[in-house]
Amino acid sequence: MATAGKVIKCKAAVAWEPNKPLVIEEIEVAPPQANELRIKIVATGVCHTDLYHLFEGMHKDGFPAVLGHEGAGIVESVGPGVTEFHPGDKVIPLFIAQCRECRFCKSPKTNQCVKGWAVENPSAMACAESRFTCKGKKVLQFMGTSTFSEYTVMNQIAVAKIDPAAPLDKVCLLGCGVCTGYGAAVNTAKVEPGSTCAVFGLGAVGLAAVMGCKNAGAKRIIAVDINPDKFEKAKVFGANEFVNPKDHNKPINQVLSEMTGGGVDFSLECVGNVEVMVSALESCVKGWGVSVLVGWTDLYDFAARPIQLIAGRTWKGSLFGGFKSKDGVPQMVKAYLDKKVKLDEFITHNMTLAQVNEAIELMKNGKCIRTVLSVGL
Amino acid sequence: MATAGKVIKCKAAVAWEPNKPLVIEEIEVAPPQANELRIKIVATGVCHTDLYHLFEGMHKDGFPAVLGHEGAGIVESVGPGVTEFHPGDKVIPLFIAQCRECRFCKSPKTNQCVKGWAVENPSAMACAESRFTCKGKKVLQFMGTSTFSEYTVMNQIAVAKIDPAAPLDKVCLLGCGVCTGYGAAVNTAKVEPGSTCAVFGLGAVGLAAVMGCKNAGAKRIIAVDINPDKFEKAKVFGANEFVNPKDHNKPINQVLSEMTGGGVDFSLECVGNVEVMVSALESCVKGWGVSVLVGWTDLYDFAARPIQLIAGRTWKGSLFGGFKSKDGVPQMVKAYLDKKVKLDEFITHNMTLAQVNEAIELMKNGKCIRTVLSVGL
Repeated sequence: MATAGKVIKCKAAVAWEPNKPLVIEEIEVAPPQANELRIKIVATGVCHTDLYHLFEGMHKDGFPAVLGHEGAGIVESVGPGVTEFHPGDKVIPLFIAQCRECRFCKSPKTNQCVKGWAVENPSAMACAESRFTCKGKKVLQFMGTSTFSEYTVMNQIAVAKIDPAAPLDKVCLLGCGVCTGYGAAVNTAKVEPGSTCAVFGLGAVGLAAVMGCKNAGAKRIIAVDINPDKFEKAKVFGANEFVNPKDHNKPINQVLSEMTGGGVDFSLECVGNVEVMVSALESCVKGWGVSVLVGWTDLYDFAARPIQLIAGRTWKGSLFGGFKSKDGVPQMVKAYLDKKVKLDEFITHNMTLAQVNEAIELMKNGKCIRTVLSVGL
Repeated sequence: MATAGKVIKCKAAVAWEPNKPLVIEEIEVAPPQANELRIKIVATGVCHTDLYHLFEGMHKDGFPAVLGHEGAGIVESVGPGVTEFHPGDKVIPLFIAQCRECRFCKSPKTNQCVKGWAVENPSAMACAESRFTCKGKKVLQFMGTSTFSEYTVMNQIAVAKIDPAAPLDKVCLLGCGVCTGYGAAVNTAKVEPGSTCAVFGLGAVGLAAVMGCKNAGAKRIIAVDINPDKFEKAKVFGANEFVNPKDHNKPINQVLSEMTGGGVDFSLECVGNVEVMVSALESCVKGWGVSVLVGWTDLYDFAARPIQLIAGRTWKGSLFGGFKSKDGVPQMVKAYLDKKVKLDEFITHNMTLAQVNEAIELMKNGKCIRTVLSVGL
């Protein structure tokens, strides 16, 4: 393309500091270096982790940054050493790399590659390096991906090439939320046919977890949320029982225990709240109950009784649903194209990048499941 | 026998109140009722859970009681409905029942039968009923078993019939500590061949866990204790590296991470201390590390960061090493007779029931691994 090898000037939503609206700015995006590719972002979801960084985590040295980590786009140009990708390829940027060389990539048990931003600059939740500048200042690449920009630059170990037939304004959701929840059910919890599951929190991640439980053959899928407006949507994804903790004057684990004669087989915490994490654990049946942490927080400890585990429960967690990112995302895209997983049903709002603050407000107020922003032309 | 159907007067060590020495008393042991058998105890180990009840747990309504739950003996008489056992059978009393009828017994995933003292009277850690009286008072049967007595009465769902060739003064250790530690490694952690393991705490349970890791084929078995006197013994059971946290001025999880290039594959907490539980979790490698709670406490919560689990670690626990009690104990007795598991090497002291307080002091002061008391004639 005509832009290859040159700095691109484009629009991006810059987070200059915590707790402030993002600002649409013109930024400069440097050309890809060795093993990197520059991607024209076409669509991006807005995920809770973006809000977390902005309003809760407020990581030291984490600003200014371009947020966004649930995007899809088209390769604009590639740097030296890149043979797997070509301009025009449809791709999804990955916030977890898959280098295929480290012992984690070589193990079938995990997706937690040792490379990428989480190792390079965890305190800023960003890559060690950045190809972005704005007004003469370096701007960080949040979670490596920075999809709230018309262009971003990624290392090839953190990009998935996907089916050219995939609609980018839908499959962008596979860049984070849907894989995270779905995989937590099928890969991490390993939900079994005929089992009873409880999913705590019915945002996009929780709904995807419900869909994972359903596809894994669960018989009873109990959707738990303090916002009963979410229940109709949960039904679409396969939930068949609904509990609002506010309707009960006893602990939710006791409610679920009574509903199920001792507790659920699998519980998935999709909120990111340490108290809910412990409730989800306690909601599992003794002996074999498995509880999975899906929601994210690094602000607090959870506190639980040892007997909860000694009684035979298992407590696990995963990032990105345990999917090896470069392998898993194209498979999930295929599953969507084959109508084995739903994506359209997550999308409650479509907006443009210029409306990103409006999308953030919707999410803060629990008024959406997913807003997809169209980016660029 | 001449005693069948009659009350037996015999010696037992009675815990009249918390924090006081046990008192050797003459007690009355009623005949077995339906589905019960009366057992002449021949030998019993002294386990930390006995001390826990006496000095730490001090459960409400838990006294007076006859402690002891790691015994072996011979059936004296059986009550109506007992067909599996006959007078003269060698048996091991079980503090976890196996009714073979509940959904937990029917599941291959757990040993946590719904029947027995833990359901009947958990606050006292005792059976709902007792066949013991002393000086006109009812005396509780601690953990259902009460092996610090010449005779005890058990329901048949909580008794294992064992090989007549088994030496009772050795296999008594299979009534608790050895199965608990060994099973935690092989059944709960499911230690893999070639793996790296860390065992925290080198009492009998920890040493049995070391033996479990060894028999499961672990390559590196790192024994951790603040008492380096335990290391020689740990070597006997298969440990090949030794760490005293007091020798380091950094957290033990960091020490183990450096020794292993990121953490161990399996860690087993055999202390019963919530801070050690968290250290053991944090000592596991991200991605696939499995940490098992083996030690017991119900006095405190553990407090850990969600990221420890989200990074791919699994936290589990088990009671009695996950062995289905009536099935597992005879198998472990056979393994001992076949020289596949060691028992003699745990026994550092042999005493009589009359010396029970001396044995308790030895254990409190970390001066023994296991003391076996001979009981009765």
